[in-house]
Parts: sequence; C-alpha cells; structure tokens
Amino acid sequence: MAVDWQLKSQLPALTERIVASYHNIGTINHLGHGQLPSTEAVVSIARDLQDIIFPGYRRRQNLHVGNVVYHIGDLIDGLHDRLTAQIARALRHEQHPELRIVDGDTADETRDFDAQAQEIAIRFLESIPGLRELLASDVHAAYEGDPAASGLDEIIFCYPGLEAVTIHRIAHKLFQLGVPFIPRILSEWSHMQTGIDIHPGATIGPSFFIDHGTGVVVGETCIIGSHVTLYQGVTLGAWTFPRDEHGNLIRKQKRHPTIEDNVAIYSSATVLGGDTVIGRNSRIGAGVSINRSVPPNTVVTNEKPSLRFREAG
Amino acid sequence: MAVDWQLKSQLPALTERIVASYHNIGTINHLGHGQLPSTEAVVSIARDLQDIIFPGYRRRQNLHVGNVVYHIGDLIDGLHDRLTAQIARALRHEQHPELRIVDGDTADETRDFDAQAQEIAIRFLESIPGLRELLASDVHAAYEGDPAASGLDEIIFCYPGLEAVTIHRIAHKLFQLGVPFIPRILSEWSHMQTGIDIHPGATIGPSFFIDHGTGVVVGETCIIGSHVTLYQGVTLGAWTFPRDEHGNLIRKQKRHPTIEDNVAIYSSATVLGGDTVIGRNSRIGAGVSINRSVPPNTVVTNEKPSLRFREAG
Amino acid sequence: MAVDWQLKSQLPALTERIVASYHNIGTINHLGHGQLPSTEAVVSIARDLQDIIFPGYRRRQNLHVGNVVYHIGDLIDGLHDRLTAQIARALRHEQHPELRIVDGDTADETRDFDAQAQEIAIRFLESIPGLRELLASDVHAAYEGDPAASGLDEIIFCYPGLEAVTIHRIAHKLFQLGVPFIPRILSEWSHMQTGIDIHPGATIGPSFFIDHGTGVVVGETCIIGSHVTLYQGVTLGAWTFPRDEHGNLIRKQKRHPTIEDNVAIYSSATVLGGDTVIGRNSRIGAGVSINRSVPPNTVVTNEKPSLRFREAG
Repeated sequence: MAVDWQLKSQLPALTERIVASYHNIGTINHLGHGQLPSTEAVVSIARDLQDIIFPGYRRRQNLHVGNVVYHIGDLIDGLHDRLTAQIARALRHEQHPELRIVDGDTADETRDFDAQAQEIAIRFLESIPGLRELLASDVHAAYEGDPAASGLDEIIFCYPGLEAVTIHRIAHKLFQLGVPFIPRILSEWSHMQTGIDIHPGATIGPSFFIDHGTGVVVGETCIIGSHVTLYQGVTLGAWTFPRDEHGNLIRKQKRHPTIEDNVAIYSSATVLGGDTVIGRNSRIGAGVSINRSVPPNTVVTNEKPSLRFREAG
Repeated sequence: MAVDWQLKSQLPALTERIVASYHNIGTINHLGHGQLPSTEAVVSIARDLQDIIFPGYRRRQNLHVGNVVYHIGDLIDGLHDRLTAQIARALRHEQHPELRIVDGDTADETRDFDAQAQEIAIRFLESIPGLRELLASDVHAAYEGDPAASGLDEIIFCYPGLEAVTIHRIAHKLFQLGVPFIPRILSEWSHMQTGIDIHPGATIGPSFFIDHGTGVVVGETCIIGSHVTLYQGVTLGAWTFPRDEHGNLIRKQKRHPTIEDNVAIYSSATVLGGDTVIGRNSRIGAGVSINRSVPPNTVVTNEKPSLRFREAG
Repeated sequence: MAVDWQLKSQLPALTERIVASYHNIGTINHLGHGQLPSTEAVVSIARDLQDIIFPGYRRRQNLHVGNVVYHIGDLIDGLHDRLTAQIARALRHEQHPELRIVDGDTADETRDFDAQAQEIAIRFLESIPGLRELLASDVHAAYEGDPAASGLDEIIFCYPGLEAVTIHRIAHKLFQLGVPFIPRILSEWSHMQTGIDIHPGATIGPSFFIDHGTGVVVGETCIIGSHVTLYQGVTLGAWTFPRDEHGNLIRKQKRHPTIEDNVAIYSSATVLGGDTVIGRNSRIGAGVSINRSVPPNTVVTNEKPSLRFREAG
C-alpha cells in the first residue's frame, strides 16, 4: 500500500481533537474511574455455569461418575474467584460511580466490597442445585410443548428458548441477591444470541417454555406462573410510563403484566400493563393485543379477521 | 482481591451438593454416555462448506483457477474425516442414547456406525455441486427482489437471508440422508446468527428469497415451491398439535403449510396449518393471518385497517 | 475411527466435480479477482471505533486523563492503515469488479485507489468528535425513554439499540463519503448481533432511541428527525418497488418514509412508502400499519380491537 506520509502526519492533531472531545462530551466516557465489570469475564462465567448445570453436553464431554466431581470442583473453585471479582467491581461502581482510581486511598473500602462480593458469590453458587431443578422442569416443558422435538438432548443442545431461560434464571438469581449491572450484561448477551429479551427482574415459575423465540420481550416487573408457554414475537410490556411531578420517569414500579399458571400466549400477541392479569389456564391467540385482565379458563382471539381477496393483476 | 479463606473452604461441600443433584435431577445430565456431536465441530464444518460453495468470498481470498483445486481438495479431505466423525457420534447417540462408554465392549458396533457415517459423508459431499446450483438461484432471486442490493457480491457477503438459506440447504440434505441431531444443531446456529428459524425438515424449491428476515419461522413439514419470497416476521406454522389417545403429541405429521411457486408473503404475515395451500402466483399481505387455503393468482390483504386519529394531548 | 480407504479414494474425483461447477455455475465464485474487503478486518475496525467513541467501557478499562492520549493515538494510527487498506479494496472492486489479479500490470491504478482511500479514511477519522456528540445524545435519549435503565453506563454497556445506532452512525458516515460495500458489511454485522436492520443509507437525526429492538427494519431512503423512538418489530419500509420499462427494479429512488422530530412508533407498527411523512410530535400505536402521511401532533391507533372471549374447552 502506498501511504501519503504528509496526509498521515495529520493523525496526532486528529487524536488531540478526539481526546479534547472527551472533555466537551463527558457523559459517555469512563476515564479515571474504578473498573466496570468486564463483559468478556461475565460471559465466560455464564459458559462455565451452563457446563455445571447441564454436565456433559457442551465443552467437556467425556464426563462420567468417576471424574465429574473433580471437573465440577475445579470449575466451582475458579468461578468463586472470578464471580467475586466481577461482583466487587459492580458493587463498587454502583456505590461510587465517580470513584477515582487515582485517589489511591480506597483500599479499606475496596476490602469491604470484596468481602460482600465473596459472600454473594457463595450464596449464588449454593443456589445451583435449585436452578438445575427449575431448568429440568423447563426442558420437560419444551418436550411436552413441541412436536418437532426429537428428545431432551436436542432441547438442551439446540433450543434458543432454553438458552434464554437458562441465562435468565442465572441473571435473576444475581438480581435477587442485589448484584448490580451484571444481570443486565447477562440478559443482553442472551438477547443478542437468541433474539429473546427477558429483563433479569422478571419473576418466572417452573416449566416455562418459549418456542422459536425471536422477538419475545418480557419486561422487568412481569410475574409469570408455572407451565406458561410463549411463542415468537410475544411482548409482555408496559402500557404507560408514569412520571413524577418533575416529569421524570418513575422507575422500579410494577408496569408489566402478571401471567398465571398454565397460560399459553401465541405468536406476536401483546399483553400490556402492570395491573393486567391473565388468569390461569387461559390462552391468548396469535396477534391479540390486550391491556386489561382476562379471567381464568378463557380463550381470547381476534375477531375472525376481515380479509380481502382479489385476483393478482 | 482479599479472599476470606474460611468462606472459601465451603466450596468442596458445595461441589458435592451440586454433584449429588446430578443423581436427583437426572434427565439433564449426559454422564458416562457416548459422546454427542460437538457444536463447535459442526459449526467449523459449516464454515468450510460455505467456503467451498462460495469460493473466494470469505476466509481464503486469493483464489484463482491455478490454485483453487488444491485449496478445495484440502478442504474436502479434512471435511470427509470430521463429518464422518460427527455423523458417527450422532448415529450412535440416536440408536443407543443410553450407551455407556464404560461398557468397554462396544468396539464392533462402533465400527458399524463409522462405516455408515463415512458413506453418508461421501454422499453428502457429492451433493455439493447440486447445492451450488440451488444457491446460485437464491442469490439471483435476492438481486431480483431487492432494490437496495448493489450487486451479487453484496448478497453473498452480507445478506442474512442467504446465510440462513445456505445453512438450511446443507442441513436439509443431511436430514434427507437420515443424519440425526446435526441438522438441528446447524439450523439453530443459523437461527442465532440471523434471527431466521427454518427447521431442517422443510422442503424449499429454488430461487428462494428471505428479505431482512428477523423473526421468520418456517416449520418442519412446510413444502415451498420455486421463486417464493418471504419478508421479516413471517411465520409458516402449525395450527393445532394433534395428540394420540394417551394425550401425547403426535410427531412427524404434516402440520405446516404448502406454498406454491411464485408466491410472496409480506412482513409479519402468518400462514398456519398442514392442509393450507397458498396457490401459485398469490401474494399474502403484511400482517395477514390465515389458516385456510388460497387459490392461485390471489392477493390477500387485511381489510383497510380501521385506524383512529386524535390530537396528541 | 475406522476409515474405508477405498471409499475415501473417491475424494479427488469429487473435488474435480466441485471445481468444475465453478465454471458451470459461475456467478457465485470470486476467483482470480482483486481482493474484496475482509469481514473480519471490517469488524475489528468497528470494535476499535467503539473503544474510541466510548473510552474506558470495553476492552481497555484502566484509562485516565494521563494515559488516554497514548492509547487513542495508537488506535488511530492503526485504524488509519487498516481502514485505508479496506477502503482501497472496496473502491477497486466497485470500479473493476472483473479486475484480474493475474493481469500483473495494475500497479498504477492500484496506487490511485490507495490515495483516494487514504483521503477518505482521514476524512472519516476527522468525523469522530461529531459522531461522539450524536451518540451522546442517543445515550441520553435512551435514559429518558426507558424506566428500566439504571443509568447511562448500563445503556452504553448493554443496550442493543445503542449498539445498532453506533454501528449505523459509523456506516452512514462511510456511506456519505462514497465508500462502497463496507457500510453494508457493517450494517449486516450489526443486524446479526442485535436483530436490528438499519440500511446505512438511512438518515437519522440526534437523540434516537430503539428499545428492545429485535425485528426493527429501517430502509435505505428513510429520513428520521431528532428525538424519535422506535420499539421492537417496527418496520419503516417500501410500499411498492417501481420498475423501469424493461421490468428492472429502479434502485436508489426514495421509497421509505420520512419521520419528523419527536415521533414515537410503538412495537410492531409498520410505516410504508417514500411519500409517507409522519408529522412531528405524532405517535403511531402498536401494530398499526399505515402507508399514508399523518399530520403533526396526531396519535394513530388501531380501532379498539374486536376480541372474542370464550371459555377454554
């Protein structure tokens, strides 16, 4: 490649203009502050957790009763350290988003975050058998719900719905333990993989099945019972965003629906609003858009659609 | 990081509780069995196949008439071995999902799976010229169907619809050859990349074009003719899931529609049911939801939608 | 693995049949031509640009006022070279798609492409402070628009909408500078990550927010004002594809809508047509499908949907 060196000599001045913009446009930099959690580290933690929850399916395959305890013990040991480190970063950032690393004298406080993070990490790891029980119910629900499934292995191996629910159950547990930031990193990583966007705050019961899944949105304050099925494109969302007297959004308030046990919501249906309750055993048909409650044992469909047929010109 | 070693000393007990859960919650483990196909290996096979089908576009670019035969010969040789190994694993798993690797005495049977796998691998590799012919028709259909396309190279390089159709045509051929499991690994990998979910069982004619594509679902028993175009969010799905007298889902039955030649189905339309036939030259408008057949040469649209207009408050 | 060598001896003949198909099915090969841009190289350029635009958030975290100028200077220097190389490839391919690398005597012309590419690369790098200003407005718009956002850092770190808009603003600048091919590689890479498909030709004003985002499609000739919000599944598309007297598609003509300032378009709404203008301060409700203009300050919703309720059988 023939480079024009005179042209290239403009680069230092150009660099200075960019760096100057870090002062003028200051809200989207993260300079001189404590470290944020690392997306890469968080994703690698999630991959290890998937190996522990579904042993033998993914990266390490030759596992048997004789060696599995060593393999898992090794994974858990490493996870404990990496999880503690990332949670400590998240806690420090949450409490002191403006903390300057150049301050020097933050050692004491840092030690507190480390201790708190370690305790949370251990409480999280203790929840793994419970997570496995929930996820086993989800795998069975997928097999019961999808005639195209050839067996449980196929579901564990290939189903994006199970991938999304696995990551959600991990993220939700961290959310419950008060870990900031990391649950959202997990949920958006899962969203990028699967096209399924579940906020880590959503509460979801056992035997949950999402089929196909692309475009599904489950909002932060949803409460979902057991044996619920969602199809592609379903939105469980907010109807209005209440604001305070200063016009600021009120955050954390329940603004997404409650879905009771045994409900199925078909493709591209939209259920909106924090007071909306879909009663148990009900079915919401494809494309239905609803923002009020439905009693138990009800089938809701759109009126037979008025279609127009004409000859192709 | 300051570690509390007393806290950390709980990890061995914690590991044991997790491993104990592999006994209590046994259906989502894969311990002591023969190896499953590896997703990583299957994906690397697919990448090589894309390089063979569209030579010069992707990883290896300096190809010309003088060196291409060596490059392809080398790829084919490696593919033969890796494909055989993965197919053998899939066959063994399909026949003997419970086969214990610790049994020791499975050598004879294993050799049979290897021989069968190798024959399938060679039959698959023989199908590549035919796959290229189909995919060339798909590239041309995209160029004919999208005014934003600047040329064939852009389509081969960038279009997720072509990516999804390429992987589908590979997966469908393996499905036809009776390979278990691997076609679904391929289709879900493609789904994760492209947001387009095509079951490997779907039968799709030449000159197929999916534009934009996110959210498209094409079910297992669909039959699609030639010169068919789908836009983003289209579902070709099942209407009901028939069950046998024991309440179990009946699998493998035709439950997804037939789309004849020259049909276009616009964004977010839904066509459902195994007996539904969309006749040739017909067009299904955006957002239409239909579960009955449409004669040839018909345009189906929703009734002019009743919209409400009011002033913003 | 037990290999049948007689079966394997068929591979050379099989390779020859595949290579022969490169002659018979010639439109999907790229053999003996100048190199195309490399997707891998273009993606790595985009990753570096994200680090420069949002310093301290991603790969390199310990940045502060004392070291940031060296870090950015280093990134810019490398970017200049790699961007120039990729743009030169794209220009050469655009002008001479049939250029044979074996011709030998193309050195002079190649030097011209290099010079033009370097000038474009520098003009692009000069635009970075302006891109940062736009993207800071987008981050603030997301915080203002989403009650689930806990802070600006979460948006920069996790929001797929911001990821898609960042890549779009980079791709659009390259599009404006007349760079062929690379803008589309960027937009489809972003589409694969986020499920959001924005053509690099689309013109988008400041303070743009896409929430959730999966399934959003924004067409090539859209013009979008400032403070516009889109939700998941929104299509801003073409209504008809005009053709010339030979039946060929007319490319580059305005066929996608204009969205004025302060408009919100809710989930799965569809706005079509090159003459369609959605006036400022208007809101288009979820699921609305419209292909004509709407005056300013208007709320458009679907007629209260006619739902059918019946008891579950």
